[in-house]
Amino acid sequence: MDVKQIAKATSRMLMSYLTYESVRLVLAQLQETDPPRALWFQQFSTREKIQDGDRYLTELLVAHQELALRVMTVREHLAEEVLDYMPEMTRAAIQQANLGLRCSHLEKIVNAPPPVEQTQDPD
Amino acid sequence: MDVKQIAKATSRMLMSYLTYESVRLVLAQLQETDPPRALWFQQFSTREKIQDGDRYLTELLVAHQELALRVMTVREHLAEEVLDYMPEMTRAAIQQANLGLRCSHLEKIVNAPPPVEQTQDPD
Repeated sequence: MDVKQIAKATSRMLMSYLTYESVRLVLAQLQETDPPRALWFQQFSTREKIQDGDRYLTELLVAHQELALRVMTVREHLAEEVLDYMPEMTRAAIQQANLGLRCSHLEKIVNAPPPVEQTQDPD
Repeated sequence: MDVKQIAKATSRMLMSYLTYESVRLVLAQLQETDPPRALWFQQFSTREKIQDGDRYLTELLVAHQELALRVMTVREHLAEEVLDYMPEMTRAAIQQANLGLRCSHLEKIVNAPPPVEQTQDPD
């Protein structure tokens, strides 16, 4: 298992996700303050485009420098705000989900109707 | 900005991503040890299915309990291995990417050909 590679890929994905959340935040702010620009920004920021965060921002810098700088500032700020909680939150969520999945699977097995042709209990 | 909501969503996404990486790891192991089962597992594990990690695992528990338990163990293990590095790695990556984007945008502006009708320098 190449843990280093997986850590790198996970971090890249996390960066992309924070870029996406930053775009959503800036868009929500614009919808309050400047609806025509919000519409333009929404049309510019398709989900497929944002998936490659850096290419998206390179294009946005050309199309609308101020908005690009704003998204960049917001994603840096979001990284400061949320990343420190991620290890504990995510580990706990995975442990809880695994436990829940195991339990409900066990319940399903226990409550399942017995097979039709059941051999009799020897006792 | 609802930081708590964003933290929750980011953690959910991180959990899904680690489930996806776990499926890839188990698949790679199977391809070495049990190619027919690897083929079945690959066909079962479509990208769309894995996006909702817990529904995917619920279905996998019914279809092939042993593999589901293996994926769950691997994702718990991966969480232990990689999550602690995420805050620092991702913050650094975002800062570096932002700096790189700003620099290359400035270079583009500086190196751009001057507008055709340029006013003469007063000096």
